[in-house]
Amino acid sequence: MENRRKFLQNIIAAAGMLYTSSTWAKTTVSKKNHLLNASRISLHKNDVLLFQGDSITDVGRNREVKEPNIADGMGKGYPFLAAAKLLREYADKDVKIYNRGISGHKVPQLADRWQEDCLDLHPQILSILIGINDYWHKRDGHYDGNSQSFKAQYRQLLESTMTNLPEIKIIIGEPFTVKEVKHVTESWFPEVEEYQLATRELANEFNLLFIPYQKVFDEACKVADGGYWTTDGIHPTLAGADLMAEAWLQMIKK
Amino acid sequence: MENRRKFLQNIIAAAGMLYTSSTWAKTTVSKKNHLLNASRISLHKNDVLLFQGDSITDVGRNREVKEPNIADGMGKGYPFLAAAKLLREYADKDVKIYNRGISGHKVPQLADRWQEDCLDLHPQILSILIGINDYWHKRDGHYDGNSQSFKAQYRQLLESTMTNLPEIKIIIGEPFTVKEVKHVTESWFPEVEEYQLATRELANEFNLLFIPYQKVFDEACKVADGGYWTTDGIHPTLAGADLMAEAWLQMIKK
Repeated sequence: MENRRKFLQNIIAAAGMLYTSSTWAKTTVSKKNHLLNASRISLHKNDVLLFQGDSITDVGRNREVKEPNIADGMGKGYPFLAAAKLLREYADKDVKIYNRGISGHKVPQLADRWQEDCLDLHPQILSILIGINDYWHKRDGHYDGNSQSFKAQYRQLLESTMTNLPEIKIIIGEPFTVKEVKHVTESWFPEVEEYQLATRELANEFNLLFIPYQKVFDEACKVADGGYWTTDGIHPTLAGADLMAEAWLQMIKK
Repeated sequence: MENRRKFLQNIIAAAGMLYTSSTWAKTTVSKKNHLLNASRISLHKNDVLLFQGDSITDVGRNREVKEPNIADGMGKGYPFLAAAKLLREYADKDVKIYNRGISGHKVPQLADRWQEDCLDLHPQILSILIGINDYWHKRDGHYDGNSQSFKAQYRQLLESTMTNLPEIKIIIGEPFTVKEVKHVTESWFPEVEEYQLATRELANEFNLLFIPYQKVFDEACKVADGGYWTTDGIHPTLAGADLMAEAWLQMIKK
């Protein structure tokens, strides 16, 4: 078990590293020059960091809190955990960290509130985790999007962001599921994987940092059951949130 | 600034280490054999870990949540941050972590609810952070205790705990203040230090692990202003909570 624990501690680093290397290799064929040679992100004095997404990012944050760096406004998920560590470790940088994730949101809802909840905050670093509702709501018959429209809408959101904020550094989180925990049955596959692939391809296309959360959770499930890491196959437990935070923090240059 | 950041990262480890060494040195003169050779704590399979204290431990936790390991029941402070990391790193141990801190509490209030909120949970590991209200309420004229009665009541609580749960491992957190931030004026000193000393002496007396939070915050204040680490001299910010969590985690054997 000792070896397994070390394995788990290392896999988080490895998962982050893997993609960074692959990104480097792809820079020569990158379609766009935006963030050419993208690698880990350095934090600079007064940087603004924005977490965007759905319920996995929101996690019950107090939406009345508009100011950065306030515990009550961070939710109880990976943004809280990552923010706490960044604020401590980079205390001399006066970084401003916002969480603007909203439960239930898909890409179109992000787009609707993008001016206020992203561009107006002028982030230097933007972390996005979106996609699971784009599949889930379609699956439940409440939404007529599909993985192609998801990818097109997501691409538009990214292009608009990079046009408005040319210097921004974007981190794309892979939407993930944990199989055989409550909601997530075999019938989710392979369709949900089309959405995951779309996010990976967009990260490649724009040469953005990418967090392979699926791999992170898959590896974690070798150490403890899926129900240890997620309450329902979709939403992380406290342990799962820390798994995400640690993977997220790999994107920041030490 | 790079050196300063490294310094801050290291001081947390150093603060924990310092006392551990001193504890080792004191084992030969320890009055009690309870936890002879106390050093860092090893987590074992199915261990129950309980965080007890006042608002600094509570931090808005949902008190309806009685189950362990639930994010909503952990509050938004150092117990949340420490629990997340422990649950991830020791996923194979099935540790159960509870937060039962309640805002405004002093030692007598802990004692009143100790059966239900400590003994009945059968913790193997107990973390206590208490004392600031014992001084503050006296200072404000709402309480007639003093540092002597604080120490006597605290000693009684510890003795009762160790009698009822002979195998328990106890971690004492030093109550702390951050000077010149809102509530904490010069007039708090030196009296508040009597309460800090009492906790240190009790930890020595019973050979318990001790977290020197005052030193942790003092060192952090060399890197960023007191207002960066605490909102009012007493309650930590998100950055301050992570400072505490990291110091707390030093008590656990790697």
